[in-house]
Amino acid sequence: MDFKLQNKATGTEARTGIITTDHGVIETPIFMPVGTVGSVKGVHFRDLKEDIKAQIILGNTYHLYLRPGLETIRQAGGLHKFNGWDGPILTDSGGYQVFSLGDIRKLSEKGAKFQSHIDGSRHLFTPENVMDIQRIIGADIIMAFDECTPGDADYNYAKQSLELTQRWLDRCIKRFDETQPVYGYSQTLFPIVQGCIYKDLRERAAEHVASLDREGYAIGGLSVGESEEEMYAMVEVVNKILPEDKPRYLMGVGTPVNILENIDRGIDMFDCVMPTRNGRNGTLFTKNGIINIRNKKWENDFSPLDPDGTSFVDQHYSKAYLRHLFVSKEMLGAQIGSIHNLAFFMWLVGEARKQIQNNTFAVWKAEMVKKLGIRL
Amino acid sequence: MDFKLQNKATGTEARTGIITTDHGVIETPIFMPVGTVGSVKGVHFRDLKEDIKAQIILGNTYHLYLRPGLETIRQAGGLHKFNGWDGPILTDSGGYQVFSLGDIRKLSEKGAKFQSHIDGSRHLFTPENVMDIQRIIGADIIMAFDECTPGDADYNYAKQSLELTQRWLDRCIKRFDETQPVYGYSQTLFPIVQGCIYKDLRERAAEHVASLDREGYAIGGLSVGESEEEMYAMVEVVNKILPEDKPRYLMGVGTPVNILENIDRGIDMFDCVMPTRNGRNGTLFTKNGIINIRNKKWENDFSPLDPDGTSFVDQHYSKAYLRHLFVSKEMLGAQIGSIHNLAFFMWLVGEARKQIQNNTFAVWKAEMVKKLGIRL
Repeated sequence: MDFKLQNKATGTEARTGIITTDHGVIETPIFMPVGTVGSVKGVHFRDLKEDIKAQIILGNTYHLYLRPGLETIRQAGGLHKFNGWDGPILTDSGGYQVFSLGDIRKLSEKGAKFQSHIDGSRHLFTPENVMDIQRIIGADIIMAFDECTPGDADYNYAKQSLELTQRWLDRCIKRFDETQPVYGYSQTLFPIVQGCIYKDLRERAAEHVASLDREGYAIGGLSVGESEEEMYAMVEVVNKILPEDKPRYLMGVGTPVNILENIDRGIDMFDCVMPTRNGRNGTLFTKNGIINIRNKKWENDFSPLDPDGTSFVDQHYSKAYLRHLFVSKEMLGAQIGSIHNLAFFMWLVGEARKQIQNNTFAVWKAEMVKKLGIRL
Repeated sequence: MDFKLQNKATGTEARTGIITTDHGVIETPIFMPVGTVGSVKGVHFRDLKEDIKAQIILGNTYHLYLRPGLETIRQAGGLHKFNGWDGPILTDSGGYQVFSLGDIRKLSEKGAKFQSHIDGSRHLFTPENVMDIQRIIGADIIMAFDECTPGDADYNYAKQSLELTQRWLDRCIKRFDETQPVYGYSQTLFPIVQGCIYKDLRERAAEHVASLDREGYAIGGLSVGESEEEMYAMVEVVNKILPEDKPRYLMGVGTPVNILENIDRGIDMFDCVMPTRNGRNGTLFTKNGIINIRNKKWENDFSPLDPDGTSFVDQHYSKAYLRHLFVSKEMLGAQIGSIHNLAFFMWLVGEARKQIQNNTFAVWKAEMVKKLGIRL
């Protein structure tokens, strides 16, 4: 993997760049649609590529490990071959999902024991086997196995959790560096910065990962219960320390406003289930604000779903028709909402990129942030 | 509407034709995907047109009347404008749905009182208002309001039911002929032949509708509990009487084998929820037989879903991947199954048309019927 920093705008940390992987290039800042079990919910890959213009998608190691399982993915020749997406893929490490399991997981120095949410079967994730699993899944960019510290953890818990994450990171790197890709193309490992909402822990974590000189870095443990101000403050702290010439991935974030605020603070990569999850529920993001399409006010509004939208659904379907699909519980409604929102998130990061290139990002962002949160 | 009979093959009643409506032409024999509430479940209209190559779709009057309701459809400018499908549309009369309601409907000479399956609200369908409703929905081809006699009705019930259907038909025609289209393009009314599985009733019904000299005719009350042999026998009886120069629509039928057998007996038009309903459940129809994609045998079969398939899903997705989507309850699985099956049904009738034109239909049909029912 290679990252080339391109532009920086004045009065902001926002920047543009190009990530090159063996499955193609990614223009940053970028949003990555989430393909949990290898499918972006409700969206055909053809539409993802040609209409939404996704450049990289995300897969969840925890889910893929359970279903379809490693044997099937290996026999297919990796996740790209299995699902037919031939562009870049990033996998998380399973850390976030495992820690979300609550009572049915148990942590130790060795790793995390957990029970499958599907059938209760028992499994163990360790830094080493999570590297091996991600080798088999075959994503272009893979993540270190970490503990995702809860946003409301106290200082002592957060400190011990970070130290565990750092010891696990050293083991991840050792295993990753002594193993080879399974399918012939290269993979890269991103360390994850934890440290909850504590400035000194985040600084320490950022310094530790920066010292390791990897090809890119992730920031985890944000958007997990802390306030938005705390999230932004932590991103600022970390990005002051992370090297400028490496991509920075803010995991699991966020709303359109969160994305712009964090681009402003120097983040290059984002992923979030919000566009698809909210799209399935009838919440649509537009450049003029948020539409709840179930609202009665759209019942007889036959104007296009989003006249400014970039995907085929925006021009073909009307607001009234989409409302009717949601009211009638037709699955096409969830499909349309998902495509619209993903295309909007892709437009948002693409437009941010242009504004950075034109050195107009700061003014544009300030205007957009005012509009994006409006309830239409 | 205009129908031009084109070819007849020897040794069979199978025929080809062209139906011309104000929304475009339909090459018969044809299969019509069912768009219950104005949406073919799980399928974007773009895919329906460009990949599946649907030529006409069906809407259900009962469902559309309840949701979105006539006021919204009228304000939109009719169903074509509301859902964005600009090709021909056919609507049923609501008869079948109303009679499926069982205890919450009540029949009289005047019409059918029923309660909405959604909110229990009370409604009345009469031959007259069902014509008015279909004028407002604005389909190119609309159906007479009839009683769909159950397949196991005794002779006396079937006879009285048919007589009611015939009196209602006269009222439908009167109302239809004294009213005008709402949106400027023409509509045509198809009478429906009932008569259950009783030869003399079917003959009487066919003679009655034939005497009315309409632009096309439907056969209803089949595939509602009777045997396949009874269905085929009734189609033969009726088609001997219906005029040769008018299209014949067999309502709600059926399996791929049913379709070929009835094309063989002179049917031109079909509709059925089977391709979408079964597709959503993981049952795929192919020219070599039927696939239950949930079966473990497909777990590591990475070959294309259907190498002979005509839609983009057939080449892009593998059997193993589609199985994984169904096992993981991912909605993309239902979407893929629906598109595949609809494209297959469209291929089937299109291929039948070519075989009739080449005068090779009888031999081809006999071979296909052997293969289509095989469980793969």
